Amino acid sequence: MKVVKFGGSSVASGEQFRKVANIIERDSQRKIVIVSAPGKRYNDDVKTTDLLITLAESVTTDGYDQEIFNAIIKRYEEIVRDLSLHTELIDEVRMSLEDAIDRYRHQQARLLDVLKSSGENNNAKLMAAYLASLGYEVSYVSPQEAGMMVTDEPGNAQILPESYELLAKLKERSGILVIPGFFGYSHEGHIVTFPRGGSDITGSIVAAGVDADEYENFTDVDSIYCVNPLMVNNPCELKELTYREMRELAYSGFSVFHDEALQPVVEKGIPVCVKNTNRPEAPGTCIVAERKLNGQPVIGIASDNGFCSLNVSKYLMNRELGFGRRLLAILEDEGISYEHTPSGIDNMSVIIRCERFMNGKEERIMQRIRTELEVDQIHIERDLAMIMVVGEGMNRAVGIAAKATKALAEAGVNLKMINQGSSEVSMMFGVEVNDVHKAVNCLYKAYF
Amino acid sequence: MKVVKFGGSSVASGEQFRKVANIIERDSQRKIVIVSAPGKRYNDDVKTTDLLITLAESVTTDGYDQEIFNAIIKRYEEIVRDLSLHTELIDEVRMSLEDAIDRYRHQQARLLDVLKSSGENNNAKLMAAYLASLGYEVSYVSPQEAGMMVTDEPGNAQILPESYELLAKLKERSGILVIPGFFGYSHEGHIVTFPRGGSDITGSIVAAGVDADEYENFTDVDSIYCVNPLMVNNPCELKELTYREMRELAYSGFSVFHDEALQPVVEKGIPVCVKNTNRPEAPGTCIVAERKLNGQPVIGIASDNGFCSLNVSKYLMNRELGFGRRLLAILEDEGISYEHTPSGIDNMSVIIRCERFMNGKEERIMQRIRTELEVDQIHIERDLAMIMVVGEGMNRAVGIAAKATKALAEAGVNLKMINQGSSEVSMMFGVEVNDVHKAVNCLYKAYF
Repeated sequence: MKVVKFGGSSVASGEQFRKVANIIERDSQRKIVIVSAPGKRYNDDVKTTDLLITLAESVTTDGYDQEIFNAIIKRYEEIVRDLSLHTELIDEVRMSLEDAIDRYRHQQARLLDVLKSSGENNNAKLMAAYLASLGYEVSYVSPQEAGMMVTDEPGNAQILPESYELLAKLKERSGILVIPGFFGYSHEGHIVTFPRGGSDITGSIVAAGVDADEYENFTDVDSIYCVNPLMVNNPCELKELTYREMRELAYSGFSVFHDEALQPVVEKGIPVCVKNTNRPEAPGTCIVAERKLNGQPVIGIASDNGFCSLNVSKYLMNRELGFGRRLLAILEDEGISYEHTPSGIDNMSVIIRCERFMNGKEERIMQRIRTELEVDQIHIERDLAMIMVVGEGMNRAVGIAAKATKALAEAGVNLKMINQGSSEVSMMFGVEVNDVHKAVNCLYKAYF
Repeated sequence: MKVVKFGGSSVASGEQFRKVANIIERDSQRKIVIVSAPGKRYNDDVKTTDLLITLAESVTTDGYDQEIFNAIIKRYEEIVRDLSLHTELIDEVRMSLEDAIDRYRHQQARLLDVLKSSGENNNAKLMAAYLASLGYEVSYVSPQEAGMMVTDEPGNAQILPESYELLAKLKERSGILVIPGFFGYSHEGHIVTFPRGGSDITGSIVAAGVDADEYENFTDVDSIYCVNPLMVNNPCELKELTYREMRELAYSGFSVFHDEALQPVVEKGIPVCVKNTNRPEAPGTCIVAERKLNGQPVIGIASDNGFCSLNVSKYLMNRELGFGRRLLAILEDEGISYEHTPSGIDNMSVIIRCERFMNGKEERIMQRIRTELEVDQIHIERDLAMIMVVGEGMNRAVGIAAKATKALAEAGVNLKMINQGSSEVSMMFGVEVNDVHKAVNCLYKAYF
């Protein structure tokens, strides 16, 4: 059995609904369908979820923004008309929104959650109706009925462990099940939405719950690329990569889905296949627990900007038991998470995302480190970028680092940092932000 | 003014005393002389300090090991006779030992400290007598008189800050001052010895106290080499290096003195010159706060065996605030200091000296990490060696890493780890112990 999730652009219009039906038609294993809210139909389009958030914000004691309300209804109306579904469905959408506004007018956080969730919820109802109209045995299953039990924290739902046992019962049901993504129900009976990557989270949880053979993630790209296509022209596509490789590549932000969402399937070892709704015949990219190595140790290059390095030095630092722990404790105390802590004998650097270092925290932290740890020197280096060279088995191949450092040296890139050896699947290079493009391109040429 | 310290082999015999006198003769700036206990005269010789420790251990209520006692006296007797000094000096040495044994027979720790310190103390008296016999204006100055005030912790004295003001007054005295190394006096009036590197510590503290122009450290090698001479034939000698470079090179253990001892002079920026008592005309090596860069970014290669790597991995580790700090806190809690903590996105390694990981601690620590941090995987990799490539300014030179990784790849060395960028003066490579010799040699060829 496959759990199939369709992202926002895959269910944005009647035309996209037809593609989804074709995809379901083609493989009888596709039994559970997770549906997002209608996304963008073209570049400048506005996602339904964003309209719903604006609507929620416009709600007052007396009313709400009627124009936004109508724009939302229009999105569903277009789909219903295009697919010649019952127009009653449009009335149901309208009533569900009006009911939500009436009921939660004075509870802003709940109102926001209920309106946001309606994007997925109403779209799933339309999808079920459409598949039924084509003659499928199909049921819309609400997250409550499915057993998607979550914590009662608006906008930040966490799945409750008991859900998995409830979700496992979905396997016994016949026909196709359509479940809206993005939200669950709390013990108190409230709708609560997941944080970022919401529909991915639902799909991943359901796939783990029913112990699916595969979790298919349909989106609008053919595959995951070996390098960000914005950096390198026509980079090669990846057919298969491991969870670990995906995690390293996701670091760069060019991943097509939210890696945190995948935790439930990663734990169960369920393959995740990324495919294109608009070109379902393309093989896509499968993310698996283990893959056969093909003699090519490097499979991808990721990069990310916006790092800074907090560098401290102190004579005899390495003889001081607890120095590193105390430095990290100061950062934790100030709520700052860090990426890496390369260290020499008398010095230690902490690589931090610059955005975490805002609002005067920087001066206070430096002062605390100076006085509490009595360091000799402390300074911050900014505008750093990290480049990850990724591939299973690269830790056993001789000469990988040589190839990379040679290419970077020939391109005149000043290597600020190298971190290799901790991860079995990646090697990290720190460079100045200005050098990133040059660095990624010369590494791509060296390895591909 | 120069503070001049002579190590054990430099003051091991009458012949060596004559060399010391010649060295003092040659430079009128050499006003304060720090003397060690008589060291080895030949390879299989026993250091006086070791004889004194054995003597202290042999002391019972009724007596002590007379043979060892006589062997100690004989060391001084030979020097006295060779230099035609008053034989009364020998009686004074004998009496000082007998007095110490009588007085501290029932206080083992004190007895050990007093006997150990007598090695330096009696040798300093002989040196003062010898220089006087040559017609110098010279005084033996006991550490108490000099103002060397320390904590009252037998065998582990720490200098008290007030000492520096007292020591500064030594500048006002005329003639040559001979001070025994290795010990100070506590407020309670007890003799207390320094930990490892004892005479180096005394020299460094006195040099800082009198604000010396230079601290000369006479030993039995011509200079510090750019690489361990046991690894590479006839490596080049270093004329000058910075404190930071010295610290990185000292990591390898081929340093000729104890780097921890140098802290007082490092803080004051006093140059430290390492010279050979047996070949004082050789230029030696000067360790300074800053040096002119000569366009050669790498000045040395150090290596050290006996490391292991504790590797942990956990999905989404980098999103978990406090993970690294908690891991380090477990190690600290178990009394284990670490060297480095390279990390990837979902993994972290802690490089530890294997010797710190003994006595069943390993299993307990792994179990604690498994349960307290809920990691996915944990394993220990052994038999690792670390190689440091050292040089001021290498962080600004393009291609340094490329040269190293190319050389290592061509030599077929599997690079387990690279850590570059935290230290401005070094780059670290982790290799298997079996590959160290090959690795150091190919790096030496690449850089020198």
